[in-house]
Amino acid sequence: MTLVAIVYHSGFGHTKKQAEAVAEGVRQAGAEAALHAAEDFPAPENNQYSGPWDVLAKADAIVFGCPTYMGSVTASLKVFMENSSGVWFQQGWKDKLAGGFSNSGSLAGDKLNTLQDLMCFAGQHSMIWVSLGMMPPGDEAGRAPDKPNRMGGFLGAYAQSNNVSPEEAPPAGDLETARFYGSRIASLAERMSAS
Amino acid sequence: MTLVAIVYHSGFGHTKKQAEAVAEGVRQAGAEAALHAAEDFPAPENNQYSGPWDVLAKADAIVFGCPTYMGSVTASLKVFMENSSGVWFQQGWKDKLAGGFSNSGSLAGDKLNTLQDLMCFAGQHSMIWVSLGMMPPGDEAGRAPDKPNRMGGFLGAYAQSNNVSPEEAPPAGDLETARFYGSRIASLAERMSAS
Amino acid sequence: MTLVAIVYHSGFGHTKKQAEAVAEGVRQAGAEAALHAAEDFPAPENNQYSGPWDVLAKADAIVFGCPTYMGSVTASLKVFMENSSGVWFQQGWKDKLAGGFSNSGSLAGDKLNTLQDLMCFAGQHSMIWVSLGMMPPGDEAGRAPDKPNRMGGFLGAYAQSNNVSPEEAPPAGDLETARFYGSRIASLAERMSAS
Amino acid sequence: MTLVAIVYHSGFGHTKKQAEAVAEGVRQAGAEAALHAAEDFPAPENNQYSGPWDVLAKADAIVFGCPTYMGSVTASLKVFMENSSGVWFQQGWKDKLAGGFSNSGSLAGDKLNTLQDLMCFAGQHSMIWVSLGMMPPGDEAGRAPDKPNRMGGFLGAYAQSNNVSPEEAPPAGDLETARFYGSRIASLAERMSAS
Repeated sequence: MTLVAIVYHSGFGHTKKQAEAVAEGVRQAGAEAALHAAEDFPAPENNQYSGPWDVLAKADAIVFGCPTYMGSVTASLKVFMENSSGVWFQQGWKDKLAGGFSNSGSLAGDKLNTLQDLMCFAGQHSMIWVSLGMMPPGDEAGRAPDKPNRMGGFLGAYAQSNNVSPEEAPPAGDLETARFYGSRIASLAERMSAS
Repeated sequence: MTLVAIVYHSGFGHTKKQAEAVAEGVRQAGAEAALHAAEDFPAPENNQYSGPWDVLAKADAIVFGCPTYMGSVTASLKVFMENSSGVWFQQGWKDKLAGGFSNSGSLAGDKLNTLQDLMCFAGQHSMIWVSLGMMPPGDEAGRAPDKPNRMGGFLGAYAQSNNVSPEEAPPAGDLETARFYGSRIASLAERMSAS
Repeated sequence: MTLVAIVYHSGFGHTKKQAEAVAEGVRQAGAEAALHAAEDFPAPENNQYSGPWDVLAKADAIVFGCPTYMGSVTASLKVFMENSSGVWFQQGWKDKLAGGFSNSGSLAGDKLNTLQDLMCFAGQHSMIWVSLGMMPPGDEAGRAPDKPNRMGGFLGAYAQSNNVSPEEAPPAGDLETARFYGSRIASLAERMSAS
Repeated sequence: MTLVAIVYHSGFGHTKKQAEAVAEGVRQAGAEAALHAAEDFPAPENNQYSGPWDVLAKADAIVFGCPTYMGSVTASLKVFMENSSGVWFQQGWKDKLAGGFSNSGSLAGDKLNTLQDLMCFAGQHSMIWVSLGMMPPGDEAGRAPDKPNRMGGFLGAYAQSNNVSPEEAPPAGDLETARFYGSRIASLAERMSAS
């Protein structure tokens, strides 16, 4: 069965909801989703990786996500990224599919820069980056909070959260975007694995 | 008198309105604004620059802007940028202030990538990059089309235009953002020149 | 047979050599390579695409490349990119593999920004980006001009050319990097198509 | 007296040497340099900033630097960046000059992406970004390890370190680049403050 892992950091729960929506999309496509918070990955000891790292080793695709804090990936996700350097040295994730998502308080903000961080990271791991695969809205109605890809992302999934409880944000359209992206990655991962 | 030049490309008139708003902001700050379309700059002959190039040589600051087409600066602006390579070789714009703006159909899209293109360009010219200097909106009301910096830009001025006449787009908030940015650059240019 | 198209712009012939090396790598992997200069693509008329555009429509992967001029993709390649907007609107290249390469006079320069331009472009086309897949050099000897990936690229293939004839630059290591990347993309494209 | 602060993270001492060279350049230009490791900044308590944070509040310019780890700014520097969010909210660093530097094992690698992270960060703080201000080398001799700007950076200072002791790396040219950049930032900060 195709396995898609999602590694995320969420400061207040909004990005966790986005990550859960990616996982839901993966499952809707008939694949297995493994959802892990970045903080759950133990630092490798003597270059030995264990726990959820083993899941990543088996995954066909890994999707990375975090809020955009001060213009780039969060420190918490970056700790995970740096802890993966032993995997990098062995090129353990080579040719796996990769994807990324980010949430912020602003509609645009610097979310693209966070995706560029994640793409550089995936590039170092010799992974293959999956774009969002959904057209941006063509009119004002398509930019409403309940519409998918309302902000017009291309390289990954964007979400925007108001300063309210994660029960209320990100809005339905952004979660739909995340689900769509999860399904897309799962389908492409299955296609890659089948060959 | 402090002189701020604005060089822009506009495909359908929306980005021209944004450019005009930057110029208006420059004037509101008491400086002179020189507004030129990228297409008006003649290719240098025998490395001789004339016409509006002379204005840029005298300017205290140069602001560059264009729509985001297919994810980056437009070909029309890029022709201007490449034509400036003789100036670059002489470092004729060294220490001038620089800024950038972009308009697109999406709220986020890849506008940040266009600004990164412009920052790399300004960096090659040894210019000094002025950020937007305005906080992003703190609540949903601040993201309305008539509110400044509704999309949360930081490194330059963002605009978003619906598929309507330039009479109607970009909306008031985005033009106010552009005016604010023009005033900020003019004030800082005056401060730099005064020293 | 797997078909990999390469679209490039070359100002003085150095990037053309890099493009030819990518094509050579494609063929070494047993796939068909279609090499086209960006200038050879006619602007679409009434949104009708013909000539080499038809090759791109059939390709399993498209690799884009150009020098880094003034910090970003060249105007000549950007004209091609903008001419593809009708294809974009139909999402005609969706799920094709994509890759990118760039050449410049500097060892680092702003080549990464050019790759970011190309990734944003490929993202808009809903393509899937293939990283270089080769580790950076681990010691000083590996940074010699005849060594592959001497500059340590990750997201695509880098070349650096001295101010000499294309007969002499880019050096052997950079051409080997390009061949390696072409082979990698061809192999992955075959794997995607086989499924 | 003009005050330029340098905030850096260094994993093995090479980037610390680069940071010290920036500080040396600041002093050579007749300004005061305050050099602080990112780890020395206490997390703010009840949004109260103390210790070296006070130095940053008084500084005319702040230069940020770290190695490029896994393609972007290091987690250690990112912790500092996120801890500055209370300053950001008050826009305490508005209009200060900013600059950035990065060191990596590769000649190019993803150092530009690290600078883009730092520029986004400085943009959020409404700072003004100072480019390197030095032309790239024009010939092969200029790319030797003892030559300034051998890798051709534009937006900040690049260094490359072999896997040897910080006594031996980064090489003389990269330290000269850092000194040059420190002097440039100090001179421009003085010019801004004088007005």
